[in-house]
Amino acid sequence: MMAGEMRRDVKVTFVPFGLSVVVPGGTTILDACSAAGILIDAVCGGEGECGRCKVRVKGDFSAQDSTHITDAEAASGIVLACTTTVDGDVSVEVPERSRLRKHQILTKSIDDMPRHLSPWVKKRMLELPKASVTDNVADLERLSRALGVKRLNYSIEMLRQLPEVARGKDGRITLTVSNLDHIPEVTRIEPGSRGGLYGIAVDVGTTTVVVELMDLLRGRVLGVASDYNRQIEHGEDVIARMIYAEEGGLEDLTALVKDTINANIRTLLAKPQAPGEEKVGEEDIVAASVAGNTVMTHFLASLPTHTIRREPYVPVAHALPPMRAGDLGIAMNPAGRVLMFPLRAGYVGGDIVADVISSGMHRSDKVSLLIDVGTNGEVVLGCRSWLVSCACSAGPAFEGGETSCGMRAMDGAIDKIRINEDLSCSYHVIGGCPPSGICGSGLIDLMAELFTHGVIDRKARINDLKTDRIKEKEEGRMYVVERKEKLSSGSSDDMVMTDADLQNILRTKAAIYSACSVLLRKTSQSMSELSSVIIAGGFGYNIDIDRAIILGMFPDLSRKKYRFIGNGSLAGARLALLSERRRKEAMEVFEKMTYLELSVDNDFYSEFSSSLFLPHTDLSKFPSASGERGEEGAR
Amino acid sequence: MMAGEMRRDVKVTFVPFGLSVVVPGGTTILDACSAAGILIDAVCGGEGECGRCKVRVKGDFSAQDSTHITDAEAASGIVLACTTTVDGDVSVEVPERSRLRKHQILTKSIDDMPRHLSPWVKKRMLELPKASVTDNVADLERLSRALGVKRLNYSIEMLRQLPEVARGKDGRITLTVSNLDHIPEVTRIEPGSRGGLYGIAVDVGTTTVVVELMDLLRGRVLGVASDYNRQIEHGEDVIARMIYAEEGGLEDLTALVKDTINANIRTLLAKPQAPGEEKVGEEDIVAASVAGNTVMTHFLASLPTHTIRREPYVPVAHALPPMRAGDLGIAMNPAGRVLMFPLRAGYVGGDIVADVISSGMHRSDKVSLLIDVGTNGEVVLGCRSWLVSCACSAGPAFEGGETSCGMRAMDGAIDKIRINEDLSCSYHVIGGCPPSGICGSGLIDLMAELFTHGVIDRKARINDLKTDRIKEKEEGRMYVVERKEKLSSGSSDDMVMTDADLQNILRTKAAIYSACSVLLRKTSQSMSELSSVIIAGGFGYNIDIDRAIILGMFPDLSRKKYRFIGNGSLAGARLALLSERRRKEAMEVFEKMTYLELSVDNDFYSEFSSSLFLPHTDLSKFPSASGERGEEGAR
Repeated sequence: MMAGEMRRDVKVTFVPFGLSVVVPGGTTILDACSAAGILIDAVCGGEGECGRCKVRVKGDFSAQDSTHITDAEAASGIVLACTTTVDGDVSVEVPERSRLRKHQILTKSIDDMPRHLSPWVKKRMLELPKASVTDNVADLERLSRALGVKRLNYSIEMLRQLPEVARGKDGRITLTVSNLDHIPEVTRIEPGSRGGLYGIAVDVGTTTVVVELMDLLRGRVLGVASDYNRQIEHGEDVIARMIYAEEGGLEDLTALVKDTINANIRTLLAKPQAPGEEKVGEEDIVAASVAGNTVMTHFLASLPTHTIRREPYVPVAHALPPMRAGDLGIAMNPAGRVLMFPLRAGYVGGDIVADVISSGMHRSDKVSLLIDVGTNGEVVLGCRSWLVSCACSAGPAFEGGETSCGMRAMDGAIDKIRINEDLSCSYHVIGGCPPSGICGSGLIDLMAELFTHGVIDRKARINDLKTDRIKEKEEGRMYVVERKEKLSSGSSDDMVMTDADLQNILRTKAAIYSACSVLLRKTSQSMSELSSVIIAGGFGYNIDIDRAIILGMFPDLSRKKYRFIGNGSLAGARLALLSERRRKEAMEVFEKMTYLELSVDNDFYSEFSSSLFLPHTDLSKFPSASGERGEEGAR
Repeated sequence: MMAGEMRRDVKVTFVPFGLSVVVPGGTTILDACSAAGILIDAVCGGEGECGRCKVRVKGDFSAQDSTHITDAEAASGIVLACTTTVDGDVSVEVPERSRLRKHQILTKSIDDMPRHLSPWVKKRMLELPKASVTDNVADLERLSRALGVKRLNYSIEMLRQLPEVARGKDGRITLTVSNLDHIPEVTRIEPGSRGGLYGIAVDVGTTTVVVELMDLLRGRVLGVASDYNRQIEHGEDVIARMIYAEEGGLEDLTALVKDTINANIRTLLAKPQAPGEEKVGEEDIVAASVAGNTVMTHFLASLPTHTIRREPYVPVAHALPPMRAGDLGIAMNPAGRVLMFPLRAGYVGGDIVADVISSGMHRSDKVSLLIDVGTNGEVVLGCRSWLVSCACSAGPAFEGGETSCGMRAMDGAIDKIRINEDLSCSYHVIGGCPPSGICGSGLIDLMAELFTHGVIDRKARINDLKTDRIKEKEEGRMYVVERKEKLSSGSSDDMVMTDADLQNILRTKAAIYSACSVLLRKTSQSMSELSSVIIAGGFGYNIDIDRAIILGMFPDLSRKKYRFIGNGSLAGARLALLSERRRKEAMEVFEKMTYLELSVDNDFYSEFSSSLFLPHTDLSKFPSASGERGEEGAR
């Protein structure tokens, strides 16, 4: 690059948060992190010496070799942030251990910001004329007069403060007015002229709760905090927790999810301020937008879920009213309103409506398919004029459940894996430590590799190959992923993939594909004419799409049609917090989106049976995958 | 009366509750009490023997002589209920000691019932179609669909009960829907078909709190309970309590008035049911209508009052929103709404708006004057098209304050008094015991008698008469009402009326008359053209109107123009509870009624000075009173 030449600006996106900064090309990733407010553990001062600033990067970048980076790490995109420069748009994952503080993130700008900021809360600064004996109208009516509104709602707490505040700074007073309801509501009054308007976007997941603190006046993310949903102690999936709720644990579950949200808020508020930044307190957070699945939303509002658990899977309510934070017990201004994303059905919740809002598929004339794979799988098909959704009990195979070697995507989990010629494995472990298990993306890699290497057949049964990698035991055949000596300390057995494990994964992938397939058939759409396939969710973000297609989990379409939106639930919540149009769209999507109950759909079961093959009974549906398999078979 | 002749129905009204029953002429008062559900202490079984069923009666009645009734008692209308029959309409006061239980009242019908019942809560019984997998819309939306409404508000508590209730009795469900706001609100859900709809009307006075339990479906009063406002321990008048509130006592005052209301509710609910009556519980009370003065209303809502106490006397709010009972802490269904009467000004409160509603003056084309005398005096002048109000600091002279012998209208208080030729007094004591003091109506009697007997002059100064009834001490002259020997035990001094006492009463009467006079002048109305003078309040109910006119306290108009509405605040609250039209009228009266601030009105001070005479500087304003005085003077 010549001196003085203008450097092209490039975008650095940080996952899984969806934050991004724009920096000049050639900037080091360490500097980009710093610009985004992400504090990196770089004790050597960014000299490439300590090796503690490892990040994983995808896209256009230049990395220097380093003794701190293993070949396996390099293969999976791990680099030192201090000695790697960005040449084009990249996405960067900063592992937990490379961060100075957990989730201590400040960012300059983010993706998915609406063009026009229109949060439902606004600040109004006004001057109240002084009362006199000839004009001794009450404080509240004086305020309404000054505001020029006839009807105004307000909490009694606000009224209690009014006399003091109205007589504070020469009658100058700042109101925070909420316009969520038909009649505007005063949520806060402050003496004098006071800027600062803050809100939170919340993604309440079964496994993780993410809270984003937003500056609503500037449309900036001030920080993101996330943590495991503390309800996990009562079961990893929603079914287990619903059973606990029915046994008298509902209040407990409500308290636990609130605690998780509130701990995240407090983490965000405890963050040291950047110079010039206002100190934000709980009272200053006057709006919250929450997206969660149906069960999590019910738990948050302490609503019973026993009718969701049993056929016909009926929630208490689809659209909850905007509740007061004080009534819900959220650690923010108690008069602030909490907007809950509407729930389409027992197993298609507000998180999926938020996914749609974030994806923009509801604004397109062309038909898209959205797939959110978590513990459950949810699929939405549609466009501007129609939307149809369904849920499939994919099972928790990709979240660490139902397989002997499965685990969540955390330190010690294999997230990338390749099978070598000798049928041994090369893999990448999150956190760089010896492996403890395999997370969802690793399982997909592994099964696809087993298939392409002829270790398993089209029914996902392990072939009787002559290799020490395949063992036969009472419970059936199994493939040895790694010997116990190489596993994390305390492992007494080899890490294996059994026939039973493979059948579980097979059912999961079949359920997802069948759901997509049935939605298309019911709406007379063809797979090949889909304009895009949108993959939502943290797990989806890490998935190797080619391998998912090899398995027949996702449709065999041009890879260019695939789009990853990451945490669409959080992004949707954020959009609703910031934009009136997106809020309205969320209600429109909810009202427009029909729901197909797969559990009673014969087409689904028929399609499901046909999908219990790799990639599918009907190979013509998977030309590229079949081709690959064909080659393998010919080898 | 001939056998077989139809007896004319007569109305028996019980004071101070405003309850009435219609009975055939000739019925004994004891039987009338029984018909009204008032339990009388008549241990002899109604044979005129025990003498324990004493009541005070006004109107057309026939009493038998009894050794249990003294001459003084007979003079003040005290009779035995069991041996007295009613010949025409009468009003009956049942003294506390004659009642079997305090405030244990059940009534068949009452005054001031609206023609058409239209409480803001209604019951809707409906059948919810069962959910199925082909129709698994959520419970709430299923409910909205069955109700045929698009928008519906509801509390989260209601939602929590919904799944259970909706699956109770074959899907039959009873909703209580409140229509106070623009959007209907579900306040209660019950399984099956459930009748019964109850509300309370509440009069929150500075001294007394009265609660009436209403059957909203039938428009019946089920009971009335009253008690002293427990705030009294922090001062008898609103000023003392506002000072206590400013010293940190606001929460305490709020708790005390709530406690008083709740104790009354519990008294009502503990009442034994009549046969066939439904047992009413706290949960069944789903609506409350509250009328109180501005300060009491602020205390109930825990709103600061320091700006009411000081010029320019500004309340926090005129019109409070209908609050949830649960938020206020009222012992009823927590989702039920509490409607507070709007407050016109710091010293013209919801009680006065309720007085107007109860009086009907706002529906008349002719101009009326309404006077409510309590600790404060409030006056309203107007008709259908206009209303103007003011408050005068009458002072608590008539409520037992500011005079050496004053006391509240309770056992031991002289409430009627006549001066004999020898200037000694004949009097009636509430409760029939030796006297302890004189209540408001007694003070008016006494001052008028002192004036007509020439004991005091037109400036209300005691003349230097040669009689042992007049004593001269350091602090000035005084008139001896009763010797200490005849007073209740423990009295160490004679009961006297001093020059200072008389000046206090003079100022009070002058303030009331001046307020009336100034309102008339400001609106260019003449006293003589008033169509009616409405006297509101418990004190007003007992006043001897002739004597009040002699003093120049009330305008000298035909006695036929005077109308007594008793506790108009309670009656107004009851009307608003039962009738949508009256609710709307209350808001219209509030919005229409202008307020005149007398404390800065020069006309008022000038009129006040002219009124510091008996009856007035300008005798032409009091032709009948002056005539009487003239005769006295000529004697």
